Amino acid sequence: MSSTETSQQTFIRSDLVVLGGGGALCVLAALAHYGSWNSVLTFVVAAAAVCMLATLVGRSVEQLGDRFGPGATGVLQSALGNLPELFICIFALKAGLVEVVRAALVGSILANLLLVLGLAFLVGGLKHGTQQLGSERARTISVLMLLSVTAMAIPSIAHEVHSPAGAHEVPFSVIVSVILLALFALSLPFSLRREPGAAQVVENEPPRWPVWLAITLLAVAGALAGFVSDWFVNALEPAMDKLDISPVFAGLVIVAIAGNAVENVVGVQLAARGQSEYAFSVILNSPIQIALVLAPALVLISQVFGLASLTLVFGPMLVVALLLSVILAAAIAQDGESTWLEGATLIALYAIIATSFWWG
Amino acid sequence: MSSTETSQQTFIRSDLVVLGGGGALCVLAALAHYGSWNSVLTFVVAAAAVCMLATLVGRSVEQLGDRFGPGATGVLQSALGNLPELFICIFALKAGLVEVVRAALVGSILANLLLVLGLAFLVGGLKHGTQQLGSERARTISVLMLLSVTAMAIPSIAHEVHSPAGAHEVPFSVIVSVILLALFALSLPFSLRREPGAAQVVENEPPRWPVWLAITLLAVAGALAGFVSDWFVNALEPAMDKLDISPVFAGLVIVAIAGNAVENVVGVQLAARGQSEYAFSVILNSPIQIALVLAPALVLISQVFGLASLTLVFGPMLVVALLLSVILAAAIAQDGESTWLEGATLIALYAIIATSFWWG
Amino acid sequence: MSSTETSQQTFIRSDLVVLGGGGALCVLAALAHYGSWNSVLTFVVAAAAVCMLATLVGRSVEQLGDRFGPGATGVLQSALGNLPELFICIFALKAGLVEVVRAALVGSILANLLLVLGLAFLVGGLKHGTQQLGSERARTISVLMLLSVTAMAIPSIAHEVHSPAGAHEVPFSVIVSVILLALFALSLPFSLRREPGAAQVVENEPPRWPVWLAITLLAVAGALAGFVSDWFVNALEPAMDKLDISPVFAGLVIVAIAGNAVENVVGVQLAARGQSEYAFSVILNSPIQIALVLAPALVLISQVFGLASLTLVFGPMLVVALLLSVILAAAIAQDGESTWLEGATLIALYAIIATSFWWG
Repeated sequence: MSSTETSQQTFIRSDLVVLGGGGALCVLAALAHYGSWNSVLTFVVAAAAVCMLATLVGRSVEQLGDRFGPGATGVLQSALGNLPELFICIFALKAGLVEVVRAALVGSILANLLLVLGLAFLVGGLKHGTQQLGSERARTISVLMLLSVTAMAIPSIAHEVHSPAGAHEVPFSVIVSVILLALFALSLPFSLRREPGAAQVVENEPPRWPVWLAITLLAVAGALAGFVSDWFVNALEPAMDKLDISPVFAGLVIVAIAGNAVENVVGVQLAARGQSEYAFSVILNSPIQIALVLAPALVLISQVFGLASLTLVFGPMLVVALLLSVILAAAIAQDGESTWLEGATLIALYAIIATSFWWG
Repeated sequence: MSSTETSQQTFIRSDLVVLGGGGALCVLAALAHYGSWNSVLTFVVAAAAVCMLATLVGRSVEQLGDRFGPGATGVLQSALGNLPELFICIFALKAGLVEVVRAALVGSILANLLLVLGLAFLVGGLKHGTQQLGSERARTISVLMLLSVTAMAIPSIAHEVHSPAGAHEVPFSVIVSVILLALFALSLPFSLRREPGAAQVVENEPPRWPVWLAITLLAVAGALAGFVSDWFVNALEPAMDKLDISPVFAGLVIVAIAGNAVENVVGVQLAARGQSEYAFSVILNSPIQIALVLAPALVLISQVFGLASLTLVFGPMLVVALLLSVILAAAIAQDGESTWLEGATLIALYAIIATSFWWG
Repeated sequence: MSSTETSQQTFIRSDLVVLGGGGALCVLAALAHYGSWNSVLTFVVAAAAVCMLATLVGRSVEQLGDRFGPGATGVLQSALGNLPELFICIFALKAGLVEVVRAALVGSILANLLLVLGLAFLVGGLKHGTQQLGSERARTISVLMLLSVTAMAIPSIAHEVHSPAGAHEVPFSVIVSVILLALFALSLPFSLRREPGAAQVVENEPPRWPVWLAITLLAVAGALAGFVSDWFVNALEPAMDKLDISPVFAGLVIVAIAGNAVENVVGVQLAARGQSEYAFSVILNSPIQIALVLAPALVLISQVFGLASLTLVFGPMLVVALLLSVILAAAIAQDGESTWLEGATLIALYAIIATSFWWG
């Protein structure tokens, strides 16, 4: 309770942390990159800087969005919240790290549906007992998530079962990507209307930044995110070599968690505050965006700009883990309740799946 | 509303359309078949004639069934509603088109659960906003659908994973078919009692046709359906060749949609009128009938009458698509609500799966 | 009703049946084993003796547990209820029958989720009409069951899709087993609190046995279970040879049903008495214990004591059947209702899956 009462002040102090910390980390990352520091250190610093920039982008959008109403904020956040991850994936494709990108896309969804959801249930359950998730909104989002991730997985399945379409990997992936992006465009008016739950949390705080500041910070953070993502990807391969981590594991676990750090933390924080319904919506919304925007956009970008060719054909273990996770998450949403034990089981499942990718 | 008020009149006019149109199309189909017209044209005319005959069968059963109560009507419609599809599949097996029949059986289920359900949600959602599906009846049907389609899929799975049973394709499929048909026989008393929802829609209209007329029209339509199905199948192969469409795609999309055209249109119409619950029941009932009656009956018929041997071993892509569709449809039924966006996503998923079969 | 009123008396008589019958069967089994009787007869007698001993273990725990409250009883029953099955599996591993043990573990889950659940629905539905399962408790258990069985299945999936982890079968299985056992340890406080439903059934009856008698009988039954399990396993292979039954089918159907006979009968009995909610909890709880305790314990025991190496890599058909069963059971739990037709369909599905393993 006390955190809400003093939130205006705290948030201003936290702004300074984000701005100062983000700036310092970007400088450090630049020094590390151009100074050819130890690759593991460079990688860690760049990852931290990406997280800070993602926070700054999120905060700028929040401040901007308050002028447009909660629906528009949601859409803006959809579009820009994935910006750092998009940059990282593009630079990784430029560097030919297709395996890492594929694993990172699937890994982001797994991390959301198993690790973050598990942590949210565990923290929420330990602090507040059994939590209710039974709203229509949570169920509708879970069905959309199930449908969109399944749609994204079809090319992989066709490839895995040696269906003739498997031999037309690129055109099939491009067609599916266009359909998924069209679906996302269709869903925008739906999203513009549906964010009342989200609004309640933010609404109390009037915008603190003038518009020009929010836009400037957004532009600066976006531009910096581009540079830092490049350094992050550059350090990725030598760092993984040094730590003897396979590219798939690096993408699935490290890039996926670093790229979504902010969203992940927000979901768990909401659950800790007892807002389990809203936490659940935020956490389930991320896989929808990856399936409907990020993955198809990367496929089209990789083909159009001649980067290393990314298709929607993910490895069989990735696809099975993906399908099981979305089915489990949907079952949990239908269940209407969460306990800390369900949370612990989800985390255990994430640990098991992540372990299965440890051997490269 | 106005359509219900004047329904007696409209329905009589529509009777004439069905009788006249059906007769004309049968004559055209005969001319096309015996006159060796262009195969694509013959195919289209025969498909249209099959649809009209299916409508006539359905209408005769409706008129007959009103004397026996709604339960018996439901059962009669179950038994006879699949008549045209049964004829088409038998003639296709006689012509050796096993691939087409397999794809058509799975395609009928996919078309119902993804395309028709999607259209019903889309139309219902756009016209009437978020629709409720939460009745016990809808959920019970969805569970039965999940169970029966899964049971039908076991021989395919055994074959795909090289289980020893996979090497005994024919006896295993026959055993499973007998079990499925026994289950259908068991379910008849359940069906005889359960159709109150269906009844409400039809009940207002007293039977318009005397019994002798209904029986005569039923017999004539059934007999004609036999002939026209033969012509349809005859034109199928050359037409697909000319249009460069693979047999699997032809079965999965074209035969599946043509063979169920009437049921499909009814489902969407019900949703358009705001009767989403009833639409949902009708749409989910069709896969149950295919799994418990049509598919096992065809397996036994093909073995007993020495047609091209049909087993319950469907291709792996067909089976995965089938299992994913029934799980998704069950999740949607549990969800208890439908929105136009869910409808659009289902249609997108159907388009993606259909595309995956485009490459032969 | 009359059975509850006279339950004290009946239960005492039934104690005598268990003690007398169990003793007699153990003697018979010893005679058969050491007298080298016909292997099929030895096998049947030993199986019956195992069932009786399992009943005696269960009853002793019940009598003991009444002193500790219903939660502790539940945990004790979790721990000791699987004792006979644990013994059988250990002796089978000692005899090198790894295939039988793998099939028995999966078969126990399938038998619970399809056959026993189906029988419970069928009996309950025929006797009491549509049954309600909609409690939060039933749903929570079904979600935990879905999660824990899925976690147990990951090593099999990794192996089947030729993921690199598949080549590290033993270490990966050991890691997963440790995680699953840790999860079980975590879940103990949850179980200790959650058994109010279970308590209602037993509560009316005060403990009839003094503590020393309950502990003595528990120890004797446990020790005898060790011997009889050995004889059971010894007779298993020659009996299966004589009956021409494959090891996988023997494990999946015969060992699985014999090893869980008591739990299975209890589940169906509860449903027959109209306590469908409680029956459902009991039936769904068993797969959780197999996934979180029995299977991982056997993996660790087999590695530590140098028995035939058991891993969590089950055959592909076993895994697919397992995953489909848990998804179906979870869907049924969410559905909130059961009918006799759902029960019949579950039994049909079990018959179909069991048939698929008939061909060795």
